[in-house]
Amino acid sequence: MSRGLFITLEGLDGSGKTTQLKRLSNWMQKRGVSPVITRQPGGTATGDRIRELLLDSRSVHLSPMTEMAMMFADRAQAIAEVIEPALASGKTVLCDRFTDSTEAYQGGGRELGSEVVLEMHRLICGNLQPDLTLLLLPSLDKSLDRARRRNDRTAEKNGPDESRFEGEQDAFFRRVWEKYREIAHRDSDRVVAIEGDLSIDDVHEQIVEAVSERLVIAHSH
Amino acid sequence: MSRGLFITLEGLDGSGKTTQLKRLSNWMQKRGVSPVITRQPGGTATGDRIRELLLDSRSVHLSPMTEMAMMFADRAQAIAEVIEPALASGKTVLCDRFTDSTEAYQGGGRELGSEVVLEMHRLICGNLQPDLTLLLLPSLDKSLDRARRRNDRTAEKNGPDESRFEGEQDAFFRRVWEKYREIAHRDSDRVVAIEGDLSIDDVHEQIVEAVSERLVIAHSH
Repeated sequence: MSRGLFITLEGLDGSGKTTQLKRLSNWMQKRGVSPVITRQPGGTATGDRIRELLLDSRSVHLSPMTEMAMMFADRAQAIAEVIEPALASGKTVLCDRFTDSTEAYQGGGRELGSEVVLEMHRLICGNLQPDLTLLLLPSLDKSLDRARRRNDRTAEKNGPDESRFEGEQDAFFRRVWEKYREIAHRDSDRVVAIEGDLSIDDVHEQIVEAVSERLVIAHSH
Repeated sequence: MSRGLFITLEGLDGSGKTTQLKRLSNWMQKRGVSPVITRQPGGTATGDRIRELLLDSRSVHLSPMTEMAMMFADRAQAIAEVIEPALASGKTVLCDRFTDSTEAYQGGGRELGSEVVLEMHRLICGNLQPDLTLLLLPSLDKSLDRARRRNDRTAEKNGPDESRFEGEQDAFFRRVWEKYREIAHRDSDRVVAIEGDLSIDDVHEQIVEAVSERLVIAHSH
């Protein structure tokens, strides 16, 4: 049996990842492909507890290094428990966030730099790389605006400082956005960046186009 | 102000670390040194939650890589929150377990090897190394016997398979024991191995001797 395709979705909070992941999954199912859908952090019993710990207000003072190591602990478990078994059995895996998120948020946003994140990836994840990464990257203005609005909604619901990741400043989101762009340029074979302020339908169409090419290649092996 | 001494205690479960740490702390306090005492995993609010997660039966199927990354997440937080501030303010830190434990248990016991653990240390902990490591290493027979008895007690209290670390086989503990010996030989400048089946008083005496030398050196600067 040939190995499954490993597809990741990336982008800032509010970039539409979740919506697009659902539409992509529906599109695949209509074509007889039942993808395994997972997310990071989370996606395993252990990962859900790590996610809780990361988002919990009691963890507000997590050091960036702690945050990064937790992300990779979660990732190691997801690879062992979900991703590798699925790929090995020929299934397509759709993963909401992977190492690019850690590079963008902790490497860029929290200014740890790319190198330490990529070295951690090599140590913890070995050679596992997505076959295709779909990066949703609306304009910086739109991205900041959406991040801010999500931030406000979270603060309204939980009180200020309740959500670690969404309680950050514009400068943080700007660094994340810029690091995502940098990754897209550096790894242009793997990453398809869908840039600009497009409609949900237009983004979906571009995603389908990128995925179709990969599925054809995978099936022709 | 001169930087504090960083002293770690290492050894298998049941080697007497906790008893010796208390006695050493009392001995220091009588000499006017008030050490900061901490442990790994744990020792911070985040670390205690990581420790829970690691020891929790729901985590029985943690991959060794996940386990290792969690240990370093805990360590990063302890360094940022407890160890570095204490050392910087001139305090002596006594830490129950540090990277040697990860090398012995995950590198040796779980067979990840030393290299990945040492590379993680370099990435996550930078240049931080203990000034002195006190390794309690009773004979292999005694160590296995104690580990087994702790295992039985845990199983009695919580039912079988309740405790992740103590629910392991002799072969695991043997690998941990051997890795500890290997570390002691390799890093003989830093590690004082207290080997053999000595009385609590004799072990304490050897610990006091090793610590006294370091304290004199630290104070003469």
